[in-house]
Amino acid sequence: MDALDKVIEAAGADVYLMYASSQDPDIRYLTGFTTSDPFVYFKRRNDRGTVIVSHMEAARAARESKAAVMTRTSAGLPEILKRESNLWKATAMMIAGQVGGKILVPPTFPFALARALSETCTIIVDENGLASLRAVKSPKEIRFIRQVQKCTEQAIDTAITMIRRSRVKSGKLSLGNKPLTSERVRSEMHKTLIGLECRTTDTIVACGKTAAIPHAVGNGPLFPDEPIVIDLFPQDEKTGYYSDMTRTVVKGEAVPEIRDMYEAVTEAHDLAVSEIRAGAIGAEIHQSVIEFFSDRGYGNGTKGFVHNLGHGVGIEVHEAPSLGPFGGKLLAGNVITIEPGLYYPKIGGVRIEDIGMVTARGFNRFTNYPRELEL
Amino acid sequence: MDALDKVIEAAGADVYLMYASSQDPDIRYLTGFTTSDPFVYFKRRNDRGTVIVSHMEAARAARESKAAVMTRTSAGLPEILKRESNLWKATAMMIAGQVGGKILVPPTFPFALARALSETCTIIVDENGLASLRAVKSPKEIRFIRQVQKCTEQAIDTAITMIRRSRVKSGKLSLGNKPLTSERVRSEMHKTLIGLECRTTDTIVACGKTAAIPHAVGNGPLFPDEPIVIDLFPQDEKTGYYSDMTRTVVKGEAVPEIRDMYEAVTEAHDLAVSEIRAGAIGAEIHQSVIEFFSDRGYGNGTKGFVHNLGHGVGIEVHEAPSLGPFGGKLLAGNVITIEPGLYYPKIGGVRIEDIGMVTARGFNRFTNYPRELEL
Repeated sequence: MDALDKVIEAAGADVYLMYASSQDPDIRYLTGFTTSDPFVYFKRRNDRGTVIVSHMEAARAARESKAAVMTRTSAGLPEILKRESNLWKATAMMIAGQVGGKILVPPTFPFALARALSETCTIIVDENGLASLRAVKSPKEIRFIRQVQKCTEQAIDTAITMIRRSRVKSGKLSLGNKPLTSERVRSEMHKTLIGLECRTTDTIVACGKTAAIPHAVGNGPLFPDEPIVIDLFPQDEKTGYYSDMTRTVVKGEAVPEIRDMYEAVTEAHDLAVSEIRAGAIGAEIHQSVIEFFSDRGYGNGTKGFVHNLGHGVGIEVHEAPSLGPFGGKLLAGNVITIEPGLYYPKIGGVRIEDIGMVTARGFNRFTNYPRELEL
Repeated sequence: MDALDKVIEAAGADVYLMYASSQDPDIRYLTGFTTSDPFVYFKRRNDRGTVIVSHMEAARAARESKAAVMTRTSAGLPEILKRESNLWKATAMMIAGQVGGKILVPPTFPFALARALSETCTIIVDENGLASLRAVKSPKEIRFIRQVQKCTEQAIDTAITMIRRSRVKSGKLSLGNKPLTSERVRSEMHKTLIGLECRTTDTIVACGKTAAIPHAVGNGPLFPDEPIVIDLFPQDEKTGYYSDMTRTVVKGEAVPEIRDMYEAVTEAHDLAVSEIRAGAIGAEIHQSVIEFFSDRGYGNGTKGFVHNLGHGVGIEVHEAPSLGPFGGKLLAGNVITIEPGLYYPKIGGVRIEDIGMVTARGFNRFTNYPRELEL
């Protein structure tokens, strides 16, 4: 019995049902199929699951998906649409022709479809089944994440090399006689990643005060003696798996406040890593970093350490488990980031993020790249 | 009263409610805010709407979103989580603290949230309101789409120039003494797009028999005298808007079957364009292309013209209106593709796709790039 079968059995359901495009990581995880249009997936215990796709996608689905393939036409949708013009109701009727009884759906299952189906079936919500199922990685998934982490390090190295080789001109960084901007560094990182068949968005190259806003991507000139936060989370185009990495650097000399923050973040990082092992509680590790920072005089409200310590990574860049206030027990095979950071609007921000796997005894770090503040 | 207010009024609702990440094009369209984590958006008539985000995102949301900004903390989520650990139920309680009565939601609204909310409110599904609202573009949106179409043409030109300059070596295309592959052409197109601050995925560079599978992205060597279908749909990183374009080329000489298919597709394209104007019916234009192909001896089942004639494009690459069997009335301001194609597994595929706007009298084509089969 596979992991999803156990979820179906535990819920007392007859079948598991999804309707989503492969932008939904759960359906991509379960089917191995990627398409921009939503499709139906259902699975009974002890079968390999079935997808219902357009006839245009059927051949590709048969090649790429782990599931059996039906077309909407063979499932009767064109006939149904002759008497029911509402596409949601018609889709529900098509699904009801294939499955019935107690149907387990994810919390994000479309309400319009659930409502139409509940006229003939019982809908049960799978509150958290797939999140915890996905959180424990198989050896194959570990390999995929390590592969994309290698590419991530190459892209970080592209950025840091550019900043290292830059010179100061009129108070700004310059490289090859052109101003070195956030956009230019980001663009070169993305070129590196494209050459490695990875895609990525919202890469952060944030300098100075902008670095104090954790999610601001940054734009315009880069300045000497100010912190530059570089954070990227590429996805391998082939496998769909992500990694996530952050480094903070200064071209020139950091002010004492930034140097102190960097040292505190580095120590917080090492402290967190030392506490990771199967059975440790995410919330407790997060809390011990809060306390460590507090002892150093750094807060954790709207300034200071303002976000979670870390998160799971897989077919989604943020997934279970959480290393935050609500984080539960870590399990061997979880892949997580450790990313303490400190942010002060009048000074700037510092963050260091590594990724690795929770093991029975500790943390198997995948990231293999120096932590170095001043270039 | 804005367009969404009319949707709320027509449904007899008190408020419109969404819960999604900005991967959901509706919430991005309504709020102008992008984030990878799901957030709450609600709007009453005559207000500018409100988003509820994490406190970490609040500053950025205040800068970027058209809506007013609340944090989950100010909306009471941490307090609620002390007595309700289920995040879906807790989120519903937080929302119920802000809105009530008759709540209009999109069809894809998460079932778990709708179920929890329906204990205290009435949930009404907005069957198609935003799709038709989004289908008519503002002048600003038209400008955004024209901008990304210009970038799209540069990327197509990158590809076609590479193929044009290639030579034949041992029966395969070669450029700069290296084999010219689908991957290499795709990678150069993506580099062009990154330099223009566009992102894109699943770009098709499909040669020979692979070109006969409409959505196959293509891989491996490119061959002379065989059709190469190049289809890409980049998104402008800043605006979030898409364009969509396809060209089919042959390095060398096409076989007569491909030449005939290309001529038929070109004529079908011109025929479709001549029928577009506000008030025309999408299904009828699609049907007239089917009939045109049929007169030339080309079918429309699993071989021949196997997909829809076209689709709307905007903040999503596929959106309303449809130029397919179920396509309704076109309106001035719709932005649509026209993309007839012919596919025969034993011969190959041909597709030509342009984009433009429906006007009172015709089709204002944005695409400005030659149609040329043999390079």
